Amino acid sequence: MSSRIGQCFTVSLFGESHGAGIGCVIEGIPAGTPLDLEQIRKRLNQRRPGKDQYSTPRQEADSFDILSGYFMDHTTGTPLCAVFRNSDTRSKDYQSLKMHFRPGHADFTGGEKYRGANDYRGGGHFSARLTAALVFAGAIAEQLIEAQGIKVMTQVQGVGPLRAESFETLELTDAVVNQLDGEGYAIQKSVEADFLKAVDDARMALDSIGGIVEGVILNVPVGLGEPFYDAFESRLAHGLFAIPAVKGVSFGKGFDFVNMRGSEANDLFYADGDVVKTRTNNNAGINGGISNGMPIWFKCAFKPTPSIAKPQETLNRSTMQTETLEIKGRHDPCVALRAATVVRAMTAIITYDLWLESKRR
Amino acid sequence: MSSRIGQCFTVSLFGESHGAGIGCVIEGIPAGTPLDLEQIRKRLNQRRPGKDQYSTPRQEADSFDILSGYFMDHTTGTPLCAVFRNSDTRSKDYQSLKMHFRPGHADFTGGEKYRGANDYRGGGHFSARLTAALVFAGAIAEQLIEAQGIKVMTQVQGVGPLRAESFETLELTDAVVNQLDGEGYAIQKSVEADFLKAVDDARMALDSIGGIVEGVILNVPVGLGEPFYDAFESRLAHGLFAIPAVKGVSFGKGFDFVNMRGSEANDLFYADGDVVKTRTNNNAGINGGISNGMPIWFKCAFKPTPSIAKPQETLNRSTMQTETLEIKGRHDPCVALRAATVVRAMTAIITYDLWLESKRR
Amino acid sequence: MSSRIGQCFTVSLFGESHGAGIGCVIEGIPAGTPLDLEQIRKRLNQRRPGKDQYSTPRQEADSFDILSGYFMDHTTGTPLCAVFRNSDTRSKDYQSLKMHFRPGHADFTGGEKYRGANDYRGGGHFSARLTAALVFAGAIAEQLIEAQGIKVMTQVQGVGPLRAESFETLELTDAVVNQLDGEGYAIQKSVEADFLKAVDDARMALDSIGGIVEGVILNVPVGLGEPFYDAFESRLAHGLFAIPAVKGVSFGKGFDFVNMRGSEANDLFYADGDVVKTRTNNNAGINGGISNGMPIWFKCAFKPTPSIAKPQETLNRSTMQTETLEIKGRHDPCVALRAATVVRAMTAIITYDLWLESKRR
Amino acid sequence: MSSRIGQCFTVSLFGESHGAGIGCVIEGIPAGTPLDLEQIRKRLNQRRPGKDQYSTPRQEADSFDILSGYFMDHTTGTPLCAVFRNSDTRSKDYQSLKMHFRPGHADFTGGEKYRGANDYRGGGHFSARLTAALVFAGAIAEQLIEAQGIKVMTQVQGVGPLRAESFETLELTDAVVNQLDGEGYAIQKSVEADFLKAVDDARMALDSIGGIVEGVILNVPVGLGEPFYDAFESRLAHGLFAIPAVKGVSFGKGFDFVNMRGSEANDLFYADGDVVKTRTNNNAGINGGISNGMPIWFKCAFKPTPSIAKPQETLNRSTMQTETLEIKGRHDPCVALRAATVVRAMTAIITYDLWLESKRR
Repeated sequence: MSSRIGQCFTVSLFGESHGAGIGCVIEGIPAGTPLDLEQIRKRLNQRRPGKDQYSTPRQEADSFDILSGYFMDHTTGTPLCAVFRNSDTRSKDYQSLKMHFRPGHADFTGGEKYRGANDYRGGGHFSARLTAALVFAGAIAEQLIEAQGIKVMTQVQGVGPLRAESFETLELTDAVVNQLDGEGYAIQKSVEADFLKAVDDARMALDSIGGIVEGVILNVPVGLGEPFYDAFESRLAHGLFAIPAVKGVSFGKGFDFVNMRGSEANDLFYADGDVVKTRTNNNAGINGGISNGMPIWFKCAFKPTPSIAKPQETLNRSTMQTETLEIKGRHDPCVALRAATVVRAMTAIITYDLWLESKRR
Repeated sequence: MSSRIGQCFTVSLFGESHGAGIGCVIEGIPAGTPLDLEQIRKRLNQRRPGKDQYSTPRQEADSFDILSGYFMDHTTGTPLCAVFRNSDTRSKDYQSLKMHFRPGHADFTGGEKYRGANDYRGGGHFSARLTAALVFAGAIAEQLIEAQGIKVMTQVQGVGPLRAESFETLELTDAVVNQLDGEGYAIQKSVEADFLKAVDDARMALDSIGGIVEGVILNVPVGLGEPFYDAFESRLAHGLFAIPAVKGVSFGKGFDFVNMRGSEANDLFYADGDVVKTRTNNNAGINGGISNGMPIWFKCAFKPTPSIAKPQETLNRSTMQTETLEIKGRHDPCVALRAATVVRAMTAIITYDLWLESKRR
Repeated sequence: MSSRIGQCFTVSLFGESHGAGIGCVIEGIPAGTPLDLEQIRKRLNQRRPGKDQYSTPRQEADSFDILSGYFMDHTTGTPLCAVFRNSDTRSKDYQSLKMHFRPGHADFTGGEKYRGANDYRGGGHFSARLTAALVFAGAIAEQLIEAQGIKVMTQVQGVGPLRAESFETLELTDAVVNQLDGEGYAIQKSVEADFLKAVDDARMALDSIGGIVEGVILNVPVGLGEPFYDAFESRLAHGLFAIPAVKGVSFGKGFDFVNMRGSEANDLFYADGDVVKTRTNNNAGINGGISNGMPIWFKCAFKPTPSIAKPQETLNRSTMQTETLEIKGRHDPCVALRAATVVRAMTAIITYDLWLESKRR
Repeated sequence: MSSRIGQCFTVSLFGESHGAGIGCVIEGIPAGTPLDLEQIRKRLNQRRPGKDQYSTPRQEADSFDILSGYFMDHTTGTPLCAVFRNSDTRSKDYQSLKMHFRPGHADFTGGEKYRGANDYRGGGHFSARLTAALVFAGAIAEQLIEAQGIKVMTQVQGVGPLRAESFETLELTDAVVNQLDGEGYAIQKSVEADFLKAVDDARMALDSIGGIVEGVILNVPVGLGEPFYDAFESRLAHGLFAIPAVKGVSFGKGFDFVNMRGSEANDLFYADGDVVKTRTNNNAGINGGISNGMPIWFKCAFKPTPSIAKPQETLNRSTMQTETLEIKGRHDPCVALRAATVVRAMTAIITYDLWLESKRR
């Protein structure tokens, strides 16, 4: 079904960006887990729009209310529902859009699918606003995988033609891994500055720009993922493509494998003491869909934010005539910046789900 | 669960490459459907190894036996089970592999996941042999979507550094669409010849090479796919990453979006008579995870076949020492060639599943 | 998973009786459905405790807040979340229960299952309070099946040794069918008076009493239910046994079939014009798990409310000594009375789910 | 979906009684389990028709072929497919039935649901023949739960008006528990003889008779079952009602609770050393849907076999006229006798599934 991800650890999202609120119901958190609410707020703050000029000036408080599944500062083991009330919703910004499909958005497809009954304001259920609830659930999942020694991190690895050093070659010391825990976008600070300049240039041009978010999962136990359909890549890609604006996902060398020979691409096994490792990690720690213990690194291509201030042609759904559209809302010039936190959240959710699933055997 | 894909039209795979056989159980075929067995055999033949020098010389008859769900030449509406008995299985080719992990294969991960109880011969349940059952199910799904006017096709679009013209720009006339129905790898015949030469070069070098399979779905009704998690991209990518050797999936401009501006990337809506279309199709016919009626085009990156004849270093799991491995089995030098049929099958399955799902509303 | 019922029309429940609130997330309501809020409130009122002396004097306003999936008085097609804030929760009534397991309740099992982290106040997530959210969802499902001409109704058919006339023999005219729509417990008013007296007797004795709720579904299309596992009986019984205090479910003649011969039990087919009917309806309109178009009638045995005012022996979980327990909370002397509305809700949910499922074929 | 039961341990059934064969695909068996094939054959033999005059004289060899998931006498952890080829299928016995609905069977409902495309011979997919595959899967599940110390047993507890002593009061010593392991129907031998006489009387009268199968699960760990929807009762009843001819299911006192007071019905907790027990077990070891460690005992009402030799009225689907039907096939006069083994199988499957599910937390 549409709103729910996961087999053992499940997250159901609900809500619309300009309705009463959004939220999630989470099942599968072990009973008696003390939630780190500060950590949850830190992640929400990283996703939060309006915190600098690189994102939309909309102010979303992103404060949440836990309605169930939480008692005396611990989870109860039963479904946990969290609600985020909507506040700063300038619906009138969207009223001119009622009859105009914004290019690159779900206004047309959502309207058709739901026969005109969809909440069209700000994308409604299709709004990236729902990722706040996802980040909430992801922060809990992150806490649960960290208790198993597993660590997820993400960075912005590309903006326009610019690229930061990849997790493939970065030495992932604790200092590096923790560097982006609270703020910042890329490990390599000099490139990060260039990224931000490129984003600002796009914004000044009343336009937007694409980006790459890269993720890595460290200390994954050997054996996560299922054959045939539930390969680790399948489950994670399913989640990643659900994030608004993702149009490509690759693991390890990804599309660069195309121009490689097998003798280069294969990662050779060796023993490091008792532990089986591979000399290279082109395959991103996954063989036959199952984790092999090496870091799982992957990339997500984000298209440029479709909402741009520059006038665009669109269709008036009442007249079926082409008209010029000027989007007056407040939008991120590069969705990849804030999306790094959303990718981290989704990755933590999928990883914990696969970890739980492997316990059943 | 691992072996089953789909919500409404489901396919469960079972079997190992060197056991008694492989097969599938399919649910969700409408009762009273007359199966086109010739079409199924044609698709199986396209996937079948051993038919030319570009694939492994293993001969797999790929003859199937329908055990249930089929009566008087029509489906009954109840589960359809098809079995493919294994025949040409030279298990002894694999016996030396019992203690040696082939690089890039699931020998190590499968052995660990199943605590040494996995059938290690030829990859066992992880073998690409299981894609025969997938192609069987996909041929049925193809028949079912064609009855709704939907058409799926795939081609090899890249081998090594070479690229054939993409479905993005090819004019998809009926002749073009049907060109690869029975044989052939790419629409653009001159490049196809170069592809085959590159594959042969890799084979002569006792090596293998990567490739790109591209797919397109035509005449998809508006409204397939579900928000939030079950975006069309999410569901299709889930299936595509389950195909052995896929390490990257992208929709439309995919990773090329990164270097685009929103004003270039957005596909502008216009009315073609009563029909809403977009002037470009960078987003591959999907907005907000929901089909918009334009062609859905996508690419899968296939890594080079990990089984190569060239000697490679590996680990002996009993001694935990590094040894040299020479893989004596018979393998494809470029897995992408035969995989085009598998991608077609998986795409048909997912598309029909989403089509059925949309009927519930 | 625990909190969710349904395949196509799904209802996820969350909440605890003495926490912030309870609620549900519903998926599968067709977009553009105008909800009849008055009808929802009527059903909630039927379930509501405190409305007469036959139920607990707890006052639960049962007012709900729809957070999502509802826009301009119509459903949007995306998940609908409704929240019921808790108000009249006298938590201190339950504090003495922290260390004492109430007999017949989930205090012991829930505590063990969740390693002591469960919200023990008033049963927490196990409380019958959650049935308010179920009745909300059921009222929507009822509206959806009525749009298809299907009608569900329930009555209290037994209390202690007393029995009212069954739906098996009652002539189900419109007047009879609508008789219990707003208030009342049994069609046969003379027996209803006896029921209420028996309940009051139990209450005066500081005790409780069991009962039977009977249901009937009229105008079910032929063909609902699935072979083998998802028989109509299987799916409906799954839901009915989830209702607190249900310990038996039977369809048609149920346990009376044991003492019948096949020649008596078989319902003989005949043609009533174009319509195939059966002369008797011992099998409750279901053959081989699939509806045959005749009324589906069934019974649920409710045990006596386990919470009674009479002192009972119990175990003190800290000392592991036996102690005397006096339950001071406010409880229904016969849970079956209010449960008739809950059975109606669950039946509507399951019926609509199976109806949607049958559309996929 | 229709053919699959279970969340973690899943069994998918396929096949028709007069087609090529029937079978199942099982997922969730731990890798490396050595299957006890003798035990599987013993259970199949208990279910097998034709072994005495109390069952149909059809001879079904019930020999199976394991196609996958089994290697060097151990399970591999991947899907296990077993096939039972059909042999003694006298299809011509059924040809006269093509146009006549047998009363009490799925001939009419299956024909309507599948628009006439169903395999009508011997009930097709609705045939009790499929329970052979269920017994196969159940024998494996039984082995898996016994490895956890959990024991399932079943007996015929009623035939017509006769009743054998119930598991409620029988002292369940090892000798008693193992008494029906290989043969026999009821623990109480004197009543068993009466049962068989009653069945034979029905057979001589060209008729059939109903029965009760009772089950008990011993040594269930505390905490199996899930709130709200996946109560132990809900999950087990779902499975039991899928067994052909089951029309009622009750747990513990079941329908006898109706005439009880709460003070009688409640099972009082006490400590037996470290172990929490209840003085009575009216609630069948389940509180709030969760197992409490006491024996889980339950009853299934089986209707009389609908296939009887006595002439019956039926409808000719071509003429829509009433005609007389004489069923010439070979059928059990009391389906409950052989069904005890099927109930045991289903109970083992559901119990192991819930046990696996509880491990995820």
